[in-house]
Amino acid sequence: MRKAQYTMQDIANQLGISKSTVSRALKNHPDISQETKDAVNKLAEEMDYQPNSLALSLRHKKSFVIGIIVPEIVHDFFANVISGVQSVAYEEGYNVMICISNESPEQEEVDVKAMYSSRVDGLLISLCKETKKLKHLESIVNKGVPLVMFDRVSDNLNVSKVITDDFQGAFVATDHLVKQGCKKIVHLSGPDNLSISSLRLNGYKDALAKNNIPLDENLIIPCPEGTLSEAKDTVKDIIEKNLDFDGIFANNDVTAIGAMNALKELGKKVPEDISIVGFGDWRLSQLLDPPLSSIEQSGFDIGVQSAKILFKQIKSEENDIEFTPVTKVVQNNLIERKSSLK
Amino acid sequence: MRKAQYTMQDIANQLGISKSTVSRALKNHPDISQETKDAVNKLAEEMDYQPNSLALSLRHKKSFVIGIIVPEIVHDFFANVISGVQSVAYEEGYNVMICISNESPEQEEVDVKAMYSSRVDGLLISLCKETKKLKHLESIVNKGVPLVMFDRVSDNLNVSKVITDDFQGAFVATDHLVKQGCKKIVHLSGPDNLSISSLRLNGYKDALAKNNIPLDENLIIPCPEGTLSEAKDTVKDIIEKNLDFDGIFANNDVTAIGAMNALKELGKKVPEDISIVGFGDWRLSQLLDPPLSSIEQSGFDIGVQSAKILFKQIKSEENDIEFTPVTKVVQNNLIERKSSLK
Repeated sequence: MRKAQYTMQDIANQLGISKSTVSRALKNHPDISQETKDAVNKLAEEMDYQPNSLALSLRHKKSFVIGIIVPEIVHDFFANVISGVQSVAYEEGYNVMICISNESPEQEEVDVKAMYSSRVDGLLISLCKETKKLKHLESIVNKGVPLVMFDRVSDNLNVSKVITDDFQGAFVATDHLVKQGCKKIVHLSGPDNLSISSLRLNGYKDALAKNNIPLDENLIIPCPEGTLSEAKDTVKDIIEKNLDFDGIFANNDVTAIGAMNALKELGKKVPEDISIVGFGDWRLSQLLDPPLSSIEQSGFDIGVQSAKILFKQIKSEENDIEFTPVTKVVQNNLIERKSSLK
Repeated sequence: MRKAQYTMQDIANQLGISKSTVSRALKNHPDISQETKDAVNKLAEEMDYQPNSLALSLRHKKSFVIGIIVPEIVHDFFANVISGVQSVAYEEGYNVMICISNESPEQEEVDVKAMYSSRVDGLLISLCKETKKLKHLESIVNKGVPLVMFDRVSDNLNVSKVITDDFQGAFVATDHLVKQGCKKIVHLSGPDNLSISSLRLNGYKDALAKNNIPLDENLIIPCPEGTLSEAKDTVKDIIEKNLDFDGIFANNDVTAIGAMNALKELGKKVPEDISIVGFGDWRLSQLLDPPLSSIEQSGFDIGVQSAKILFKQIKSEENDIEFTPVTKVVQNNLIERKSSLK
């Protein structure tokens, strides 16, 4: 259990001086002699004296900590976002506390309250897939805590947002396959109910149109579960049905990997027979044989941008300058690897 | 910037009752009429009234938050530890705050102070590789914050510790290869200066001895960097030098993957010609072709055990029962996959 800490009074008593002398000595006040300052600092060091942080934070109303709530960290994306946030925060002299909601809206609510109670100076959040009610977030916004949403954001809250451009990423991936000579590109598409799926599908369609390749709806193959086995079975199925294609743009890297495994098992060569590009650039993608080309979602950059906006808001409000929420769209990069280079 | 919150006085003023009546109504005190309780609760809800958590935590000296500091989250291991910690904490009615030190001892010090300032009721930590000074940890232990170290621990601090059994994991991996019929097992070994390397090497040696296979020092091949390219080059080199071997136990999964890629490029079949087992069981290992057998380091279990010990200490000290630090060794599991099954 926490023990009582040494106070300025303890230092004062031990040195036989007043508490206000101790206080001024610790602040390097010019009225205090160097001798006294040295004695106070030495004793403070020995006693491991720390200014009472709770009292301090009550007075300054600042903790110099920002919070970030992410739904999970098993995918690299959110881990990269956290790194980006840290890089900005440390430069600003702030620390970063993290909560993981584990895709549970109930846990997300508890996390937001815990962040508020530990007096973060600002909060970054990416919502759970299932989060529908936003009262927990409205509540802390109303209480004056600067909030920035990233990646999984909601239109129903008037705060700053940082999102990625799924349409553009899919366009770049498909355009790259066309430039590599592919003419019949399969799209392994994601679940209908997620907006990222339709944005990526539209990017695929747009890239074909810009390259004067007519859209063949038969080449759009749903892989809604996004599992390895689903992708493997699906691609085996279309090959056995003699679907004619020379490239694959997959909705995500797992689907791309499943497709690659199926092709290899059936004796097709990647990229010679069929080129593949994934989406998300998992850490594992570069370790595959052949290494997988993929759209990198720039988690680090999203973290950097989100944190920069948050600090802009924190500083504006500290100086009583009104802050208008902004929305920033971060572009994705194609990482070209052997799986798509003919 | 944070706004002033509504107080009990605000509720009292608006309803024209006393503050103590509001206080008792909120606590469902029997002396207060149901009508008044309903009115108070309704207004508290409307005002989004929240008991002043800072004042509360000053009074109760509890935050119901535990902290965890990990060196990184890019590997699955620490992410799994966090999941294990969360599972125990949520059941105990506690929340979990995370800091990531990014393998920086300086950041680790700042994180420990931030955790203390946000008044965690207990702290879990896995040290940075380079952490040598322990003053920051001694300091919070002296201030009465329960501390449990896990995985990367130090002998120089008398607190509870949870570690994995690297010797046993390596023994199980090597023994499995022998049982699959391997007689000449290469060990791709880790850097000499880490104790996990020598523990794993000793586990390998012990398993050979128990199976009456004489040790051949030529089969112990250093891969100190642990990179994909190093492992690939090393294994290509030993094959070109016609080293005779039928199995590989790699110090970690990256090394195992590099080895597998080299073997495949040189036309060797895995597992038919050469069986492989890794260590660490990365998320990607099951996605490889063939899927990689590996030693699972039970991050989740380490998290569960560490959190359980921490709560035991927290509760003991709350009840003024002396707590004696314990050390727990968690066993590793072999995950058998195609890469080692002949």
